[in-house]
Amino acid sequence: MNEIRDAARVFIAERDWQQFQDPKSILLALVGEVGELAELLQWLPADGARDQLREEPLHTRVSEEMADVLVYLVGLADQCGVDLRSVALTKIQASADKYPTDQHRGVAPDKT
Amino acid sequence: MNEIRDAARVFIAERDWQQFQDPKSILLALVGEVGELAELLQWLPADGARDQLREEPLHTRVSEEMADVLVYLVGLADQCGVDLRSVALTKIQASADKYPTDQHRGVAPDKT
Amino acid sequence: MNEIRDAARVFIAERDWQQFQDPKSILLALVGEVGELAELLQWLPADGARDQLREEPLHTRVSEEMADVLVYLVGLADQCGVDLRSVALTKIQASADKYPTDQHRGVAPDKT
Amino acid sequence: MNEIRDAARVFIAERDWQQFQDPKSILLALVGEVGELAELLQWLPADGARDQLREEPLHTRVSEEMADVLVYLVGLADQCGVDLRSVALTKIQASADKYPTDQHRGVAPDKT
Repeated sequence: MNEIRDAARVFIAERDWQQFQDPKSILLALVGEVGELAELLQWLPADGARDQLREEPLHTRVSEEMADVLVYLVGLADQCGVDLRSVALTKIQASADKYPTDQHRGVAPDKT
Repeated sequence: MNEIRDAARVFIAERDWQQFQDPKSILLALVGEVGELAELLQWLPADGARDQLREEPLHTRVSEEMADVLVYLVGLADQCGVDLRSVALTKIQASADKYPTDQHRGVAPDKT
Repeated sequence: MNEIRDAARVFIAERDWQQFQDPKSILLALVGEVGELAELLQWLPADGARDQLREEPLHTRVSEEMADVLVYLVGLADQCGVDLRSVALTKIQASADKYPTDQHRGVAPDKT
Repeated sequence: MNEIRDAARVFIAERDWQQFQDPKSILLALVGEVGELAELLQWLPADGARDQLREEPLHTRVSEEMADVLVYLVGLADQCGVDLRSVALTKIQASADKYPTDQHRGVAPDKT
């Protein structure tokens, strides 16, 4: 993740684009990339999507959109001084505590 | 990134939640987390957002939402057989080629 | 639609919230509501979602999130001087021209 | 709103696209349109966005993306049997009750 962050920092600095990197703008850019990802998935059949997304040319298209989302997410975290990797590992552990395996096996998490 | 992917895989396998991990569902879950991130930023003043996001308690809140986005993104990539790190580094290089520094210094990228 | 716009205008004016109604902030608020909608749908089975969304208590929950999306969309259009209703009707007609019935019957629109 | 819903219904029926209109797919399509809208706004300066969005050619571009969001939202509501207009008016009234004018005048709503 640090490698991506550093590459993005160089890219931005070389173009003097730091001035556009306010968090709300980066988040909207991330939303734009999530939207492009959604466009690639929207009409796929739910139960065939996984296989179709592993076939070309869709695989490359979807890989690139996911990468775009990641780059903006890493950039947003960088602006906010967030150590994404560390927080993500902590959050997965917190979810493990929140959903004990014996009570939640095979049951979709309830978000309502 | 592999560390996060592996932790997420274990979490899902232990709960037998693989059955819910179709790509469209994961993407909607990611959209949900992007939405929570947006709610934290939406009314912040554009020019003060960066500093406010570095102060507690907002810093922790926003860190966790970014981590949630990352975890779903890594999970989606895992379902689709995408090596996120590698594609992201390639995409940053492609952007560097697309926006030569001498023509784009200090000019916001035109998305229209 | 004008009724919703006018009610939202009164609501905003009475609280002196016009100052927060810049388009990027409203769009992030809309993204937040889309995220809440996504959270309600994410783990529903694709082929059972329609029926489940018509049953309480999910029906009321999802109705309210859709309404929140609409209110922010109407507010954003209002800020930008957009006549949403008229543009929407024109766009549907444009889509009808773009996808002639004889060539597109029963075929998912290709967004790739 | 009913006019838009009815035009969309005819459009879908004429192409036999009802089969693709499951709620999760429509929501992803909506996310795609929100993403396109975000791409148009992302790098605009926060305090100049409103004026820039009222000028051509951006005004037409942004109008069309907003209309696309609306069409999918109306379609999603239609699938779920939701009377969007009525729920939206009720929600605005509920917000008015939740944020009394005397306590919230000039203060950004707290979403944290």
